[in-house]
Amino acid sequence: MFSVKSVVIIGSGNVATHLGTAFLKKGIDIKGVFSTTLDHAQELAEKLKTKAFASITDIPKDADAYLLAISDWALSETVRQLPSVDGIVMHTSGSIGLGIFSGTIKRAAVFYPLQTFSKNKQVDLSLVPILIESDDTEIVESLKELGNKFSEHIKEVDSHQRKQLHLAAVFACNFSNYMYYIAQDLLQEKGLDFNLIKPLIKETAKKLDTLSPRAAQTGPAIRRDMKTLNRHLERLNKHPEYQEIYHLISEQIQNLKD
Amino acid sequence: MFSVKSVVIIGSGNVATHLGTAFLKKGIDIKGVFSTTLDHAQELAEKLKTKAFASITDIPKDADAYLLAISDWALSETVRQLPSVDGIVMHTSGSIGLGIFSGTIKRAAVFYPLQTFSKNKQVDLSLVPILIESDDTEIVESLKELGNKFSEHIKEVDSHQRKQLHLAAVFACNFSNYMYYIAQDLLQEKGLDFNLIKPLIKETAKKLDTLSPRAAQTGPAIRRDMKTLNRHLERLNKHPEYQEIYHLISEQIQNLKD
Repeated sequence: MFSVKSVVIIGSGNVATHLGTAFLKKGIDIKGVFSTTLDHAQELAEKLKTKAFASITDIPKDADAYLLAISDWALSETVRQLPSVDGIVMHTSGSIGLGIFSGTIKRAAVFYPLQTFSKNKQVDLSLVPILIESDDTEIVESLKELGNKFSEHIKEVDSHQRKQLHLAAVFACNFSNYMYYIAQDLLQEKGLDFNLIKPLIKETAKKLDTLSPRAAQTGPAIRRDMKTLNRHLERLNKHPEYQEIYHLISEQIQNLKD
Repeated sequence: MFSVKSVVIIGSGNVATHLGTAFLKKGIDIKGVFSTTLDHAQELAEKLKTKAFASITDIPKDADAYLLAISDWALSETVRQLPSVDGIVMHTSGSIGLGIFSGTIKRAAVFYPLQTFSKNKQVDLSLVPILIESDDTEIVESLKELGNKFSEHIKEVDSHQRKQLHLAAVFACNFSNYMYYIAQDLLQEKGLDFNLIKPLIKETAKKLDTLSPRAAQTGPAIRRDMKTLNRHLERLNKHPEYQEIYHLISEQIQNLKD
């Protein structure tokens, strides 16, 4: 099996930073960083103790792998501009297939970390599932080995499955976080500390260790407590947008089957 | 200050069970359990090493406090039926004021644990905020002492604040849990293991230790990534109800101010 020992990082955002840092820690040779914004490339290169490149044509051509940790919309143009290389070229997107590489990239793959990365927030990557895809089984094995260096959850999934995981993640992560946002906004309005509700938020996530979401569902909607539902809707009368969410989700929870 | 040393539990659901167990552990004398369903009362009484009562008129009249851990809709009728007692009578509801006791109860209070309780799921009560209310400052002090026996987060709040906290909790807990439910449903559909997404769910909650929900918001909506949003909506075409949620929440996230 071919081992990935060196990587060039394309991109300088949260995914590039977290994965680049993980690679470096595990002894992977980071051969350089390219980003369309040179300042950002330099900042990340400094963190990763490597060089920044101002032009994508200047990046080292002899790396074992090229990590394209950039926005979905920038992928196809970046693939077009990428110099011809023999190493594995892998993107980190949940919602883009292998087709984006077709024709131009010899050894194409996906290396998708199923996690929410924010700036200045450390993440324990050992718990982060890394979802791998390639048409070439040898590449899959090489990337499994690379992922295994820092994560305990490496899994090969096809594009359809990865896209479904990404969609599910939007609900489980992005939309949950927006529920936290609304909660904070409502508390702030009455001079209440958001910290009061954090134990509840953590317990809600932790419950899934022992209960299914269906079994863990509590609250006025699942109890069909119409009095409380109506009182809450009334209480939200200055927030028509929250009212709409409250109404829609409560209705769906009420319709859950036992 | 008057110390609560004995309690009668009215109710046999999740809140009655968790609080009753916490009281017992801390050496409170549980004088009995009443529930409209005698079987349930007996089951909880056994757990709490005490007696079950088949009729509310039979409960001991000399307890220091009476915990009414019952559904909101049952409260006013139960208060009406409660024998005349000198002890503190307290309900555990997030959305009901003190008014429900007016006229009939001498020493009325609220003892509201801000948490999601499910059957057969242990909860670390030391982290659970207990929100206390009473018109009588001596009762507030007594209940603070009682709550402090097992929780590190005791807080006096008025009815308006408690109702707002309860409303915020519906978003932060009940609605987040429904987002987990949708994620599981979507994964199941493609034969994917819900465990894959649990690290992401936990990290999403954990992020709030260091970031505000606004700063923690990630995903296609906050990036205004219309291509992915449209692809996701299309992918949900067999689930019009999830599509509606996706559309509504994504729209609101896109409108978030920086």
